[in-house]
Amino acid sequence: MSADTYPPTDRTTPTRLRERVGYDRAAVHAVLDEATLCHVGFVVDGRPVVLPQLHVRVGDDLYLHGSTGARSLRTAADDGLEVCVTVTLVDGLVLARSAFHHSVNYRSVVAQGRAALVRDDAEKTAVLEALVEAVVPGRAAGTRGPDRRELAATAVLRLPLREVSLKVRTGPPGDDPDDLDLPHWAGVLPLAVHRGTPRPAPELADAPLPAHVQAWVDAG
Amino acid sequence: MSADTYPPTDRTTPTRLRERVGYDRAAVHAVLDEATLCHVGFVVDGRPVVLPQLHVRVGDDLYLHGSTGARSLRTAADDGLEVCVTVTLVDGLVLARSAFHHSVNYRSVVAQGRAALVRDDAEKTAVLEALVEAVVPGRAAGTRGPDRRELAATAVLRLPLREVSLKVRTGPPGDDPDDLDLPHWAGVLPLAVHRGTPRPAPELADAPLPAHVQAWVDAG
Repeated sequence: MSADTYPPTDRTTPTRLRERVGYDRAAVHAVLDEATLCHVGFVVDGRPVVLPQLHVRVGDDLYLHGSTGARSLRTAADDGLEVCVTVTLVDGLVLARSAFHHSVNYRSVVAQGRAALVRDDAEKTAVLEALVEAVVPGRAAGTRGPDRRELAATAVLRLPLREVSLKVRTGPPGDDPDDLDLPHWAGVLPLAVHRGTPRPAPELADAPLPAHVQAWVDAG
Repeated sequence: MSADTYPPTDRTTPTRLRERVGYDRAAVHAVLDEATLCHVGFVVDGRPVVLPQLHVRVGDDLYLHGSTGARSLRTAADDGLEVCVTVTLVDGLVLARSAFHHSVNYRSVVAQGRAALVRDDAEKTAVLEALVEAVVPGRAAGTRGPDRRELAATAVLRLPLREVSLKVRTGPPGDDPDDLDLPHWAGVLPLAVHRGTPRPAPELADAPLPAHVQAWVDAG
C-alpha cells in the first residue's frame, strides 16, 4: 500500500462533479487527521444507522472507538461490519448571485469497507494511545493508561483504507456568466474551528497548564 | 405534532448512557438549525452510504438538498428512501486523568425515517428559499431565485421528524474517584465554529458588504 493514490472503484467513482473528487492518499490522510470525529454508517435490519464516533488513522488503517455496549460494535463481533465512514470539514459558506449556485466549501472523505473488531490486546492498547494522542498530541504521557477492566470495556474497530475518496469544493462562487452583472453581493464566508481557553476540572482551578495543553492552545 | 417531545421508539432508546439522551423538541430543533450540514445515511445494494448534505428544518419537516443526479435522490424517486440523518456539533475535547474517560463534548441529533422526494414546485421553491435563508438569514432577498431549469435540476427530500433523539455530553471530565489525586491535568478544551472575514468574489473586491452579510459577521 505504498501508492500515492487510492485506486478508484465503482463505488468511489462519482456520476457527477467529477472534478471535485480525488484519491490522493496524503490529502485523504490530512482530512482524516484534522477531524475531531467521523460519522459511521452501518445497516441494522436493512435500515441505515449513522452515529458520530471518535477515530484515529494509523498508517493505512482507520480505527473507530466505541463501547462494547454499542450496537455497531456488538454486530461487528462475529465476522465484521460493513461500514461507510465519512469525515467532513466545513471551510466556508459560498454565496452566489443565484440561489442555485449557493454552496459550501468543504473537504469530505468517504471510506467504505468491512470493519473488524480488534481482539489483540497489544494492538488495542496501541490504538487507544493513538486515539488519546489524536485528541491532543503529547496527551498519552499525561494520563493514566487503561487497566485490564477498562481495556475489556472498550471496543475498537479497524477499517483498512482501501475504497476511499476525497471530495473538495474550494474557491469563489461559480455564478453563470449571465448573472455576473446582477446587483447581488457574492463571495465566501469563511468558517473554521476555533480553540477556546482551557477550562480546568473543578479540583484543578489553580493548576498550571501542562506543556501539551499549552501547545494545543498555541497551535490554535 | 405539538407535543414538547418526540416519543421514544425502540430505535431511539439507547442501551447505554441513557442519561445523555433526550427527546426535547426545541433542543432537537436548535441543534438542527445551528448545524451547517448533516450526514445522510442510506442503503445501496445492502451496504451503507453516508454523505454530507445541506439541510433545513421547516417546522417538523427536515429537508435535504441535492442534485437530481445524486444516487440517493434518484433512489428516492419511486417510493421514498429509508434514511438516517445525523447532525453533530462538537463543543470541546474532554481530557480526563485516565485515558479511558477521555471524551468529547457534543450535541448530536439522529433522525430516522423514510424521506420522500418533493414533487410540488411551490413546496420546492419555498424549501430552496428556506435553504438559502438557513445559510445566511436575509440572503433569499439578496440573490436571484431559481428559474424553471434550475428548479428541475434540483432535488429536495422531505423527512418528517418522527423518530428523533438528541444525545448530549457536556461538562467536566468524569474521572473515577480513585484517579482524582493523580498528577495529571484534566479539563475541557473548548471548540467552536469561528466566522472569518468575508471574501468577496473577484469582481466585487471593492463592493460594500450587504446588510445581511454584515449581520452574519456581527453575530459571529
